[in-house]
Amino acid sequence: MTYCVGLLTRDGLVMLADTRTNAGIDHISCFRKLYAWEAPGERVIAAAAAGNLAITQAVINLVEEGIENPKTGDIETVHSVQSMFGAAQLFGRALRSVYDSDGKVMQSRDTEFSATFLLGGQVAGRNVRLFHIYSAGNFIEATPDTSFFQIGEHKYGKPILDRVFSFNTPLVESVKLALISMDSTLRSNLSVGMPCDLLVYRRDTMTIDTTHRIDESDPYFLGLRDSWSDALRAAYLAVPNPPWIGSHNPA
Amino acid sequence: MTYCVGLLTRDGLVMLADTRTNAGIDHISCFRKLYAWEAPGERVIAAAAAGNLAITQAVINLVEEGIENPKTGDIETVHSVQSMFGAAQLFGRALRSVYDSDGKVMQSRDTEFSATFLLGGQVAGRNVRLFHIYSAGNFIEATPDTSFFQIGEHKYGKPILDRVFSFNTPLVESVKLALISMDSTLRSNLSVGMPCDLLVYRRDTMTIDTTHRIDESDPYFLGLRDSWSDALRAAYLAVPNPPWIGSHNPA
Repeated sequence: MTYCVGLLTRDGLVMLADTRTNAGIDHISCFRKLYAWEAPGERVIAAAAAGNLAITQAVINLVEEGIENPKTGDIETVHSVQSMFGAAQLFGRALRSVYDSDGKVMQSRDTEFSATFLLGGQVAGRNVRLFHIYSAGNFIEATPDTSFFQIGEHKYGKPILDRVFSFNTPLVESVKLALISMDSTLRSNLSVGMPCDLLVYRRDTMTIDTTHRIDESDPYFLGLRDSWSDALRAAYLAVPNPPWIGSHNPA
Repeated sequence: MTYCVGLLTRDGLVMLADTRTNAGIDHISCFRKLYAWEAPGERVIAAAAAGNLAITQAVINLVEEGIENPKTGDIETVHSVQSMFGAAQLFGRALRSVYDSDGKVMQSRDTEFSATFLLGGQVAGRNVRLFHIYSAGNFIEATPDTSFFQIGEHKYGKPILDRVFSFNTPLVESVKLALISMDSTLRSNLSVGMPCDLLVYRRDTMTIDTTHRIDESDPYFLGLRDSWSDALRAAYLAVPNPPWIGSHNPA
């Protein structure tokens, strides 16, 4: 399993991914699932991957090495696409290419063709964008109404984002929320595991602001975990008691 | 879908269940899923149900009308069992009886035989207990190490319980946590819906402390929802900023 979250805000983009892969509960490995391509002043593109690792690694290889654009005949790479929409199309074509070569064999071995990506970034002169790319190669885009996407084990980490994250949340606060969302998931699903990779991009800077690998001994993350639990405890204690405690009206 | 949660504490028991049933997204109904049987001074038994409504209603009918105990030959009901362990066995036998009569036909129509229960309560002279009963009729029991159970759509409402609930949480605080857990689930899954039914039992009182149906206009629940979101917002703002924001070390 996997947990990746991407937050699109007025100020930029936050992407966070765990690194655990597992083939059965006794076959656990660590692989980076967050990829970034940067040409300072020109483009920042980042992708987070969930699903079958053979598929997602093949897709990353293809978008780096290049795929022919069927309309123009040009070989396109993540370094050459002219827009984030073009990058999303490139990832979609890469997924379809892997499906064409491996999909049938995988299905014949009862292996699901499953791979999804979060793809975010900015190409100079264009807007910051965040896409959720499906296994079929089609995709949706985050908007101010729904400005975060999750892939993998998404449920445990969703309530905190639903309650307090919005497009207007400042970037550093968004980083904290992504980390809290990740911590909720780490606690509840053993197949999501540390270390985690973080990327922060500030709108219109055309250069990566932050990359950081957070491991189990990261003092900030350990402090956040404790202070968040303490804050929740204080918060629910501050909620008044229900007025109907002690009233029993048999149905 | 459904969300039910049962919390076993040093002081007693909290059970909370939604009321939404759905057969497809355009066939939504309201059915009580929380049942209680009380003989003041003698027994309090409560059950919350998830899964196929035809199965769970059949089980409730059977435990009320009686099933033969294969060891003693006696007809047992939820009113006559001598212990909570006996009640859990009775529910298990009822599930197996429904499976024997309906399971094969359901499978032939591609309908999964799925029904789970939370069963909690106390019989005079015995301990307060909480069981999670599976579709197969077998069951597990909550302990001070793991003192809550969830059935149905459990993931959204689990992080808050994982972080702050324990066997030593006071009963009224446990009610608040169950409500927050329910609210997180209601927000994220449309197939879990209001109104919700609450039951509170205080250890060794042998009488129900609280039953309450919470509907969408319940002022306390609306206030809890708002104050919880406000408290979370304040809590994450109080977490210090990550020290590594702005540091980018290309991999």
